[in-house]
Amino acid sequence: MAAKDLHLLTALQGAELIRAGRLASVDLVQACLDQIGDDPLNAWAFLDPDMALVQAKEMDRIRKAGRATGPLHGVPVGLKDIVDTRFMPTERGTAVFAGHRPETDATIVNLLREAGAVIMGKTRTTELAFAHPTDTLNPCDPTRTPGGSSSGSAAAVAALHVPLAVGSQTGGSVIRPASYCGTYGVKPTRGVISRTGVLQTSETLDHLGVFARTLTDAALLCDVLGSYDPRDPASFARPRPEQFAGAQADAPVEPDISWFDFSFNDLLDADAREGLDAVIEALGQRVTRLPVSATLTDLIEIHITIHEYEFCQHLSEMIDTHWEALSDTLRPIIARGKEITKVQYEDALAVKASADAFFAKHFVDFDAVLSPAASGEAPLLASGGTGDPIFCRIASLCGLPALTLPLLVGENDLPIGVQLYGSIEEDDRLLRTANWMQTTLAADV
Amino acid sequence: MAAKDLHLLTALQGAELIRAGRLASVDLVQACLDQIGDDPLNAWAFLDPDMALVQAKEMDRIRKAGRATGPLHGVPVGLKDIVDTRFMPTERGTAVFAGHRPETDATIVNLLREAGAVIMGKTRTTELAFAHPTDTLNPCDPTRTPGGSSSGSAAAVAALHVPLAVGSQTGGSVIRPASYCGTYGVKPTRGVISRTGVLQTSETLDHLGVFARTLTDAALLCDVLGSYDPRDPASFARPRPEQFAGAQADAPVEPDISWFDFSFNDLLDADAREGLDAVIEALGQRVTRLPVSATLTDLIEIHITIHEYEFCQHLSEMIDTHWEALSDTLRPIIARGKEITKVQYEDALAVKASADAFFAKHFVDFDAVLSPAASGEAPLLASGGTGDPIFCRIASLCGLPALTLPLLVGENDLPIGVQLYGSIEEDDRLLRTANWMQTTLAADV
Repeated sequence: MAAKDLHLLTALQGAELIRAGRLASVDLVQACLDQIGDDPLNAWAFLDPDMALVQAKEMDRIRKAGRATGPLHGVPVGLKDIVDTRFMPTERGTAVFAGHRPETDATIVNLLREAGAVIMGKTRTTELAFAHPTDTLNPCDPTRTPGGSSSGSAAAVAALHVPLAVGSQTGGSVIRPASYCGTYGVKPTRGVISRTGVLQTSETLDHLGVFARTLTDAALLCDVLGSYDPRDPASFARPRPEQFAGAQADAPVEPDISWFDFSFNDLLDADAREGLDAVIEALGQRVTRLPVSATLTDLIEIHITIHEYEFCQHLSEMIDTHWEALSDTLRPIIARGKEITKVQYEDALAVKASADAFFAKHFVDFDAVLSPAASGEAPLLASGGTGDPIFCRIASLCGLPALTLPLLVGENDLPIGVQLYGSIEEDDRLLRTANWMQTTLAADV
Repeated sequence: MAAKDLHLLTALQGAELIRAGRLASVDLVQACLDQIGDDPLNAWAFLDPDMALVQAKEMDRIRKAGRATGPLHGVPVGLKDIVDTRFMPTERGTAVFAGHRPETDATIVNLLREAGAVIMGKTRTTELAFAHPTDTLNPCDPTRTPGGSSSGSAAAVAALHVPLAVGSQTGGSVIRPASYCGTYGVKPTRGVISRTGVLQTSETLDHLGVFARTLTDAALLCDVLGSYDPRDPASFARPRPEQFAGAQADAPVEPDISWFDFSFNDLLDADAREGLDAVIEALGQRVTRLPVSATLTDLIEIHITIHEYEFCQHLSEMIDTHWEALSDTLRPIIARGKEITKVQYEDALAVKASADAFFAKHFVDFDAVLSPAASGEAPLLASGGTGDPIFCRIASLCGLPALTLPLLVGENDLPIGVQLYGSIEEDDRLLRTANWMQTTLAADV
């Protein structure tokens, strides 16, 4: 492979070549830097080529010295700019944190270093990982949004800037931008990945997730990021599901997949609906269409209530101090969030608990729920937003592992993802099901 | 295998059977508890059978629920009582900390839980992990010391109470008791395993290490315990050597091993000397005997200076407050440590730095140093001490990975270990060399 094409390597390919001494991390990182150029997509909030190359040189030195190499040895990874880094600014998509330098690294940054990864830079996030867009462009069509809030992570992976990027999802901030940009997106079970040192916008709903160009790469990164961290109250003191093994496993029997006929499926664009119908048809008896009770549909509002209430709680001091610096998109959301009473919030948590119980039962019979990842192709930038996260809210609400596969193509030849979500702490089963599904559909075509 | 014999399983065997659903953790843990009985060896500082069984049941529940299993799923592990545990007392071998309950768990406790291990209990340590003996008996001969300071960890593994235990080494507190009790002992490179939440006795010299009945088991536990932890200043932000893979690897070519003719080798008992000579002879040209410069011999005193100085610095407040509660063994050591000046200490650190450079060069030519682990069989309890750590001080001083293999038998049919130590951060190479050596010697016999 020519040096200029090294950015085409998957993370797994790059790591294996580097570990085998057949590729230098500096060459891989340089090829990625060349691909980024002066970042016409505005995917990066912070990028210092020298800082990335210094890390790459160090990883090369370690390998040459015969010292240990890690699973992501010398592979560049982008980090959403809400993840604290001591050595790079962490601006959280707002002028309020311009030039902010956290005192410690997030837990996941330590894990990435232990894995030998090169922290390439910080990717653009919407304001405080909420609704107000960045100026990041969609690599598939620069007149369109890459989605949010992990806008830069999705764009950077889709544009071959880096094979891997970390994002986060509170509503639909991993699955939706992955769908719009045509990458894989994976959000593990709540508690698998520590959030310590990551901007807290909703203790109940915040998740970390990943972007990659293969399912295996996404799973590899999830395994690196997973850890028990008692400083994150959601983190559990048990083994993590083996995501990489799951993504490569064969299904022992053909999986059973459910599809919910939600009323809000009306929001789907015609091309997305047709594409999903074709997937369902191709999977035949493996998919069971299920009617939806009103309670299940209500979960969308429950999610919004918890999100907005907790956002105002966690960030109240910052909101009060910097009100004028907040966007016109965010202020009305905050105003609404402040109107939510503690009783309404607690009622919402109670409904969430019953939804958790519903899904625990549901996944006895089904391996995964098939779902839209987004309403269709990426919306035009002119629409002013980052797209609707509605199809991702339920998995975020219940902490379910979720992923999107870039399987469909819309009427403008733009990607549309297909979402699967599964049982708590059975991410490996979900990944195995996803692997089965994409293999089956590919054989069908 | 009969239920009553389950304590004979190695950690790897136990974990594999549990993960495969062919063994319940509760049965394994119960067999180990039965083996401990009322602990006639005094190996345990804290042991609550119910607390261990509750964890085992939880690991069985997780596996049956189809959730993730870890590399030590359901396997009981003993923890030296200087490792902080919230849920069990941490008394550090002294009445000063009687009933002490730390507020947080040590980093390695979190890693053990993430690996699915059952924390069996706390094993006896000498007073503050220094010289004053516990009342723990050597399982091979109860009239003898198990060695120190990780007395209980060594005894518990040797007596088949648990397949694995964690210890620590500042001078010779893993390698020596492992030698005396006939177990494997491994102390990885300084900085591989985080010491956060472990009693600090010497920032420069403290290491965590492990006891097991096979080299593979020891390596498996080292891999679980290794992590980058920025709260430990010695912890490095790089990949960890793969110990388990190293212990199972074949040497690509026959290794080159060195032997230093230290003047203090005179301290060896006749049976230990004969055994080591036989090992050297059997390995033939693979071992190179090297003369020793005075500088190298001086490292013993350098180690002692740093150890005693730092011990007094770290624990000064505790020493002053609880002087009367300290043993007659420890008080003269402290008195001596307090006499060491800052200049003497800094000179010692400078000599250590030159020794580090010496070994960096040495391990370009050699895969490992062959060395006694201890002067011979375990001393009698009547001797009043826990044996001489002199043969372990150099590897502790320079942070080198070290291990002992239970290869020799002394004149009283008691075990004598053979130590190997190797290059910083090349623990996998050391383990591979050890594996080669024990295979080669076994074939020779």
